Amino acid sequence: MSTTIHLEKKVFSENDKLAAEIRFQLQKHQVASLNMVSSPGSGKTSLLEKTLQTLAKEIRIGMVAGDVQTENDANRLIKAGGENIKPLVTGGSCHLDARMISRVLPEMGIEELDLFIIENVGNLVCPSGYDLGEDMKVVLISVTEGDDKPLKYPAMFRRSSVMIINKIDMLELCDFNMETVKRNALQINGNLKIFEISCRSGQGLDQWYTWLKKIIAEKKNL
Amino acid sequence: MSTTIHLEKKVFSENDKLAAEIRFQLQKHQVASLNMVSSPGSGKTSLLEKTLQTLAKEIRIGMVAGDVQTENDANRLIKAGGENIKPLVTGGSCHLDARMISRVLPEMGIEELDLFIIENVGNLVCPSGYDLGEDMKVVLISVTEGDDKPLKYPAMFRRSSVMIINKIDMLELCDFNMETVKRNALQINGNLKIFEISCRSGQGLDQWYTWLKKIIAEKKNL
Repeated sequence: MSTTIHLEKKVFSENDKLAAEIRFQLQKHQVASLNMVSSPGSGKTSLLEKTLQTLAKEIRIGMVAGDVQTENDANRLIKAGGENIKPLVTGGSCHLDARMISRVLPEMGIEELDLFIIENVGNLVCPSGYDLGEDMKVVLISVTEGDDKPLKYPAMFRRSSVMIINKIDMLELCDFNMETVKRNALQINGNLKIFEISCRSGQGLDQWYTWLKKIIAEKKNL
Repeated sequence: MSTTIHLEKKVFSENDKLAAEIRFQLQKHQVASLNMVSSPGSGKTSLLEKTLQTLAKEIRIGMVAGDVQTENDANRLIKAGGENIKPLVTGGSCHLDARMISRVLPEMGIEELDLFIIENVGNLVCPSGYDLGEDMKVVLISVTEGDDKPLKYPAMFRRSSVMIINKIDMLELCDFNMETVKRNALQINGNLKIFEISCRSGQGLDQWYTWLKKIIAEKKNL
């Protein structure tokens, strides 16, 4: 057992060191950065497609699309108008780590970016433990998943700064209570900023875009 | 790197040894056993609630409900009529392992069971790597998650014997093609048995119950 603990400590401190270097690079170039996390199928890629379609002409966005297998998400983001999209296939690993981001970052041209978004592997557990050098983790949940998820996967909600509730167009079809999910989430993390959106209907997306512009402006001290 | 590989090997072989012991016990008492895996919110607990409500009077069912945090799922299963339900809170771990099952199994009275079901932690990646001594892994996906999931999380679909497609009552509201998901899944694993169900409408559940009775009868050589 002591071996396991020792190894985890070592891995984490190496990850944290690399994450700190990434953060330093992003800060130096005043690039706002987000690490998007969720269950598989919550709608990370759909939200990023919409974001690119709406903002790619006025904001310089770079994205890394992480997946266990396939470059499908990266291809979807390129089709949506993304000009600076890198696939990152983990080949089995259940999360992205800072070493993977370090490898692709030099190809991103971050000195030319306003916003850098990492789409993590679909997994509500493991990605919570890995700092990737981002400003904030953004956790998505969809109303089809149930309003108990913050209580059942607390680490992810505790380490995120933003919670996006997606697929609200399906709210009436689901046993999902909006007040319950917010209470459950805020009980874990009282500082969560919350958005309610539907990528399908477009509802709530304007507030998300406005907030993205705000964090970019703040990062550039405008 | 070599340390990491060495450790994983050690952990896996210990897990496999314990899984073999669990399998031996279950076989000895002719108990059919399933390990239910899925993303968070695909409907594992809902399906198990329905299964208990329908079959608990004629089949002796024991269940272990695994969760990162909370005993909510176990409580739901008890409310649904489960008389032999054990919660298994991992306290952060992203999957169940054979050691955890070994600890609760002596309390389950397996010599009196027809069917033993393990509800794994909601995670489409990590639980695929851990044998729990079960006869089969059963992977659930819901139509709200998208039809690309078998390609993106191939290990889980390769190591499962059954794929259950849940929430088919929402099919028309989702960009989910039933033929595509089946093709994607069978491309990964040509032997998958497939069910299409809705826990909400009840559609397809009869086939699931019939199949459960069949595997129980086969296990008892009836």
